[in-house]
Amino acid sequence: MAAPVLTPRADDFPRWYQEVVAKAELAENGPVRGTMVIRPYGYAIWELLQAELDRRIKAVGAQNAYFPLFIPEAYLRREAEHVEGFSPELAVVTHGGGKELEEPVVVRPTSETIINASIARWVQSHRDLPLIVNQWANVVRWELRPRLFLRTTEFLWQEGHTAHATEDDARALALRVLREVYEDTMVQVMAVPVVTGRKTARERFAGATTTWTCEGMMGDGKALQMATSHELGQNFARAFDITFSDETGSLVHAWQTSWGASTRLMGALIMAHGDDAGLRLPPALAPVQAVVLVARAGDGAGEAAAALARDLRAAGVRAELDDRTDTSFGRRVVDWELKGVPVRVEVGPRDLAAGQVTVARRDTGAKEAVPVGGAVAAVTERLAQVHATLLGEAAAHRDRATVEAASLAEAVEAAQDGFAHLPAALLADGGEQRLHEAAVSVRCLRTPGGGLPPSGDDLDGLVAVVARAY
Amino acid sequence: MAAPVLTPRADDFPRWYQEVVAKAELAENGPVRGTMVIRPYGYAIWELLQAELDRRIKAVGAQNAYFPLFIPEAYLRREAEHVEGFSPELAVVTHGGGKELEEPVVVRPTSETIINASIARWVQSHRDLPLIVNQWANVVRWELRPRLFLRTTEFLWQEGHTAHATEDDARALALRVLREVYEDTMVQVMAVPVVTGRKTARERFAGATTTWTCEGMMGDGKALQMATSHELGQNFARAFDITFSDETGSLVHAWQTSWGASTRLMGALIMAHGDDAGLRLPPALAPVQAVVLVARAGDGAGEAAAALARDLRAAGVRAELDDRTDTSFGRRVVDWELKGVPVRVEVGPRDLAAGQVTVARRDTGAKEAVPVGGAVAAVTERLAQVHATLLGEAAAHRDRATVEAASLAEAVEAAQDGFAHLPAALLADGGEQRLHEAAVSVRCLRTPGGGLPPSGDDLDGLVAVVARAY
Repeated sequence: MAAPVLTPRADDFPRWYQEVVAKAELAENGPVRGTMVIRPYGYAIWELLQAELDRRIKAVGAQNAYFPLFIPEAYLRREAEHVEGFSPELAVVTHGGGKELEEPVVVRPTSETIINASIARWVQSHRDLPLIVNQWANVVRWELRPRLFLRTTEFLWQEGHTAHATEDDARALALRVLREVYEDTMVQVMAVPVVTGRKTARERFAGATTTWTCEGMMGDGKALQMATSHELGQNFARAFDITFSDETGSLVHAWQTSWGASTRLMGALIMAHGDDAGLRLPPALAPVQAVVLVARAGDGAGEAAAALARDLRAAGVRAELDDRTDTSFGRRVVDWELKGVPVRVEVGPRDLAAGQVTVARRDTGAKEAVPVGGAVAAVTERLAQVHATLLGEAAAHRDRATVEAASLAEAVEAAQDGFAHLPAALLADGGEQRLHEAAVSVRCLRTPGGGLPPSGDDLDGLVAVVARAY
Repeated sequence: MAAPVLTPRADDFPRWYQEVVAKAELAENGPVRGTMVIRPYGYAIWELLQAELDRRIKAVGAQNAYFPLFIPEAYLRREAEHVEGFSPELAVVTHGGGKELEEPVVVRPTSETIINASIARWVQSHRDLPLIVNQWANVVRWELRPRLFLRTTEFLWQEGHTAHATEDDARALALRVLREVYEDTMVQVMAVPVVTGRKTARERFAGATTTWTCEGMMGDGKALQMATSHELGQNFARAFDITFSDETGSLVHAWQTSWGASTRLMGALIMAHGDDAGLRLPPALAPVQAVVLVARAGDGAGEAAAALARDLRAAGVRAELDDRTDTSFGRRVVDWELKGVPVRVEVGPRDLAAGQVTVARRDTGAKEAVPVGGAVAAVTERLAQVHATLLGEAAAHRDRATVEAASLAEAVEAAQDGFAHLPAALLADGGEQRLHEAAVSVRCLRTPGGGLPPSGDDLDGLVAVVARAY
């Protein structure tokens, strides 16, 4: 038997991850430490994901805009908590246009400050509210232990920044983004069943009053924070002087939110669904949804496969023809499995002579012979099933790997293989710190029924979801 | 009569431009000199333009990818001519992660070098060719005399980089991009009738063997280079060691191209079509294609306008309702004219009582009363006409402002108000330099029939298009 194409996940999950990223041609390291080249196949997945997020972001009323890469250092100092969160990660430009700059500028680690400086100019009256701005951009946070997609010095993301007349309006928007943009994309597009909840004071974004999060469970039982949505209160509004005249003519500070998701989602996609043969892509994010392979040249297989690929495209399937018969059939199958293509159609002379082709699903591995005339229908039927299967498997994995813990020690133990549910009251009096010392963190707080708790810091009666995390 | 909302173009074109950019809420200066905030309305136009370009870029076989913002300084030195072109414009990061970097890194002024380093790894065999990669990204070139969209320290662009087995293949791709991506977008989407041709050796991209260009004439008669497509020969392939084994097994250097277009196109769009009332947008790039204004509240005007806006949207028109009747009708009309919205529908109680609404075209200023029931059809009909009218006007303006010149002196004089056609033979023996000294440049070389000349440096029998330029 041939050597496995990847290190099995059970042997060394981080190594498996690295190998999938490389062999599926998703990304590679850039020449400057911590930077990343997103290869065409990886970027095609990202483009599909970005389009799905963007559509939902616009549906909550956001307008896209673009703000500068370079930020005056002084801007970052305006919101004290905020700068503390970022200063060790900053990249600083000291030379421009052939000489030393009078004032160094910072490469944006986030655009919070520069966008708020614009919002302060754009918002004058309550009629200008709500203001909902989103930006797709690259940001830089110097990373000493980089891992492709998960932690890179430069990454791509979207960041939404909003201003509202009331705290209630801001809260409603932050929660709407959490549910209608992030959770919906993760579940309906990525097939990742996320846990949503509120961050503890320790884990929340510097400068926020409440941080909401979507946490996914990866194949190794660790959590990955997939997106966050923050209520900022009036903290940035005070720092950046964002005021508006209300209906009575008084000048008041706006209430704000911010929210973001990044190329980290690519890491989640890989680790939530991947198996020992490579990626498994949900059809909505598959650049190639179905590949038609000519198993062996001759006897009309090439022509039949080309015709089928054409018919699939005409039926709205992103289909590709693989007629590279000078490469072995087995090697090509391994490659398409690595790349996670949801459905594979194998066209060989023997099958064809019987009026059939073979349709294989990447998610379950199931293979079936179907009549040539029914192949398009067979492919589209299977494509419609793959999403639900991946989502169901990921949910079952998460449920199996989630334990009810009654003590900090039990939670730490359970978190070695998955998530633990812990009464949040146990986090008080140094409890959360003890988890931290055991390399375990509170991913979020929820109600006992799994619902979202109120905003704020209250732990009463809540459940903490505890895990190791990426 | 009210003061004009903008400085008339004839009085001060640069000032008119600045005012349109500000008052139509397209962009504003960022806090770091030379940087730009692209406001939501400006960015919505850019998104539409970007989507049109991207669709065509993919149609020529390109795959999108993403390469790092930071480039090792050493990379830029590999291609000598290339670095000479960029070094005075570079932004240099010397500090990262809280300390001084051992090796400073450059913020990409273009990704030519870093993409070629990847292409060198990705290309091994003739089977890997052609490789056609495109990137949408921000780039930085330090700018001492910034002008929004036209010259900014940071700008957004796409850059395509390709590798081919033969010089002919590379040339064919460079020309295909020139025509099918750039010229087609400019004419069919932007309604700007561009002049295409070859750059002179003096004007071509550093490191290229031939540069192809699209040049538009702006409202003041000056030229704007809207996109370029370069044949690079084997220059970068040698510098970056991009080799492949050909069908005989020999290792040979690839033939390459690169090509780009940027947010400068926004400047072209503004200056090619704008008039003294503001922007005039071609419908394909109008975030709002039709605005339905409630002229005055009461007598069902609000309801009728809302219904019409809904019907327009249902008919596939990007329509917006303006029911801000607490702002004067005249002021709102001025604002929508500033923003260049192609068609305006005015709904007032008096018109409505007669079963009518007023439909106004932004391009011609024509206003007509139409029956309420025919309003959707009237709007879509007019939208279909606006593109051709804008294109026709721009072409007529260009033709009127283009002069046949028989000497360098005549060309310089003609270029004060537009383009001059000059026998290219006159550029030899210091002729091009004399134009340069008169602040005039050769925008491109064409055949006497207006066709594209061969690649290379030959001037024989060609016509030089000479102009002042942005």
